[in-house]
Amino acid sequence: MIVQKYKDMLSGKSVIRQLSEFATARGTEIGYENVFDFSLGNPSVAVPQEFTDALVHMLTTKSTQELHGYSPSLGITKVREAIAASLEKRFGIPYRAEHIFMASGAAGALAHAFRLVTEPGDEILTFAPFFPEYHPYVDLTGAVLKVVPPDTDCFQINFEAFEEMITEKTMAILVNTPNNPSGVVYSTETVKKLAQVLTKKSEEYGHDIFLISDEPYREIIFEGVDAPCMSKFYDNTIMCYSFSKSLSVPGERIGYVAINPACAEAATMVNMCGQISRGIGHNCPPSIIQLAVAQVLDQTADLSVYETNMNLLYDELVKLGFTCVKPGGTFYIFPKALEEDAKVFCQKALKYDLILVPGDSFGAPGYFRMAYCIDTEKVERSLAALRKFVAEEYPECAAQ
Amino acid sequence: MIVQKYKDMLSGKSVIRQLSEFATARGTEIGYENVFDFSLGNPSVAVPQEFTDALVHMLTTKSTQELHGYSPSLGITKVREAIAASLEKRFGIPYRAEHIFMASGAAGALAHAFRLVTEPGDEILTFAPFFPEYHPYVDLTGAVLKVVPPDTDCFQINFEAFEEMITEKTMAILVNTPNNPSGVVYSTETVKKLAQVLTKKSEEYGHDIFLISDEPYREIIFEGVDAPCMSKFYDNTIMCYSFSKSLSVPGERIGYVAINPACAEAATMVNMCGQISRGIGHNCPPSIIQLAVAQVLDQTADLSVYETNMNLLYDELVKLGFTCVKPGGTFYIFPKALEEDAKVFCQKALKYDLILVPGDSFGAPGYFRMAYCIDTEKVERSLAALRKFVAEEYPECAAQ
Repeated sequence: MIVQKYKDMLSGKSVIRQLSEFATARGTEIGYENVFDFSLGNPSVAVPQEFTDALVHMLTTKSTQELHGYSPSLGITKVREAIAASLEKRFGIPYRAEHIFMASGAAGALAHAFRLVTEPGDEILTFAPFFPEYHPYVDLTGAVLKVVPPDTDCFQINFEAFEEMITEKTMAILVNTPNNPSGVVYSTETVKKLAQVLTKKSEEYGHDIFLISDEPYREIIFEGVDAPCMSKFYDNTIMCYSFSKSLSVPGERIGYVAINPACAEAATMVNMCGQISRGIGHNCPPSIIQLAVAQVLDQTADLSVYETNMNLLYDELVKLGFTCVKPGGTFYIFPKALEEDAKVFCQKALKYDLILVPGDSFGAPGYFRMAYCIDTEKVERSLAALRKFVAEEYPECAAQ
Repeated sequence: MIVQKYKDMLSGKSVIRQLSEFATARGTEIGYENVFDFSLGNPSVAVPQEFTDALVHMLTTKSTQELHGYSPSLGITKVREAIAASLEKRFGIPYRAEHIFMASGAAGALAHAFRLVTEPGDEILTFAPFFPEYHPYVDLTGAVLKVVPPDTDCFQINFEAFEEMITEKTMAILVNTPNNPSGVVYSTETVKKLAQVLTKKSEEYGHDIFLISDEPYREIIFEGVDAPCMSKFYDNTIMCYSFSKSLSVPGERIGYVAINPACAEAATMVNMCGQISRGIGHNCPPSIIQLAVAQVLDQTADLSVYETNMNLLYDELVKLGFTCVKPGGTFYIFPKALEEDAKVFCQKALKYDLILVPGDSFGAPGYFRMAYCIDTEKVERSLAALRKFVAEEYPECAAQ
């Protein structure tokens, strides 16, 4: 008998995926260059040349067994050492190899983090707006994801709602800063306050509450933005990192879990990740990709295009009368729709070949997401379409 | 609170791993070339040059987005097409891309297969001797692995015991042929009989029973051996394949699930694999490695060394009085120990720097495994150590 639960999931197709498919189909009609496709968070910039060079150099000089042989289940030791050293240098936290577990991208890292600290029935709290995949990621472990409603003024944390929702069953808090979909970066004030609440509640409930920090956008921070490292403010922090966005290599599935050395059983938890892997078929990320990223830890792709795109869009949106929190990083922006139902709003936008994603699945109905990891030239051309869309569909706003 | 179940697993260290660590430590004393380390199933032969060439060619000619961009969650379409075509050509079964799901090695493939057809409490039956990792792989899904005792005469299937153990709760049968640890390949007669039993029992219980066929050693078949393709004999077959052994690339985590096109909901099941991935953090295997294997589907590493090694060991073992089923493939051999407790036997062998693995964890106490994926020159040198071991510790056998 095939398992009904997974079969049922097939009918619940993601809105983002549907919109992306619409964009592709529309592209075959009018040329994809004429579709202003803001649906997918798929990095558009080139991979750093150093990454490619590292791969070619290894392939032409090293033995195949050294490159493609089994990696230890926790990751290749010298890769873990290099990552720990890089994190220590950057954040001043004494990470060592024993605190690092190599994982298949952020999804692989989170799959381990959730299983480290929750059992079926336990609660994980996250803050809207949030990445919709958190639902299947958490739900399928048997734990329960509870979503704290957004603070729509600034998309920092709605602490009032948070303190009402945290309970004795809350074992972990899942944060994503810089945030998908809002582009907002949590401020030092927010992070300090979050740490205070978690310390207080851990004492009150008599058990640790872990902070799972999903950081795939860590390297995409815009000018002048305060971007604190979560682990510096809270001992029980499990950092989940992916190189997908920083190096533009999402297909290679490479990232890591870094357990704060100040966490009481940090090294044990890393070893436990190796056990969790056995149950979920993880094993280790591809060995040659582990070896390659270790050689470019201080590099990123040219991420400046994202800030250029953000500024173009933000300025135009504000000019057109949109309410919009200015992103501090990522390649997303999350304005308020011009009518109550963002789904209707995004549907109307399709007429102008603008592919926008309604905020409902991100836990923030009434808002919409634009992923601007596309060519700047296309962003520039999209502004006219945006102006036309607003002028024709929402003349009362355009007139303001 | 960190989860006790995974913490507890840390104390249950695998015997294979312990022996491998002993071998490494001993190697630092006397030179690793003098340790006859038969503990690990780690491919020793070089990766085919065509694989390396394919990688270098792509890295130097293709765009980085094409190489390292997101792969669809089911795998890159043209890779799935190439694999389906290759399977069709080879086995005459009409596989199409829709029947193929790209997975991170055999472990990733099995993780999906188990979840496709079992829910917690359901039973999966496997046949001893079996790969010990099947226990955590299955147990951590919540399903129950039941092990049918071995037919020690030939290490084919003990059908009498099997028919006694199969119940209404049995949702899948897990087979591994060519087999780790016995090296035995199931004969056409065995496979036909297995298919008959499963067909009969499916009807009797009123539900499908799936055959999960773990085939990482499929390409390592010795001369004159009958090696039937399971899917040809039973419609509800889920093939789990890995390129780890055929291409000698175990670190790259690349394999696939192929659902028999004759299976009623084959394409749906492949789509369900994409949903299962969301719960276990799988996503997809590394994209550049997917693209590379698709270019060398008809190649293997030079696997002939394994047959050479097998013949050397088999002949010597038989000459020394061991009872031993001759392997038909893989790089394992599984003789009967010269005393009842194989753990004691393997312990004594350590004195001769022979690293042998007792069969207990493979579900066949009294036997031991030798993994001969090592240089032939070392196998040759090991024979003297074997002779000395038997002569000194078991003079009554040596005298026969």
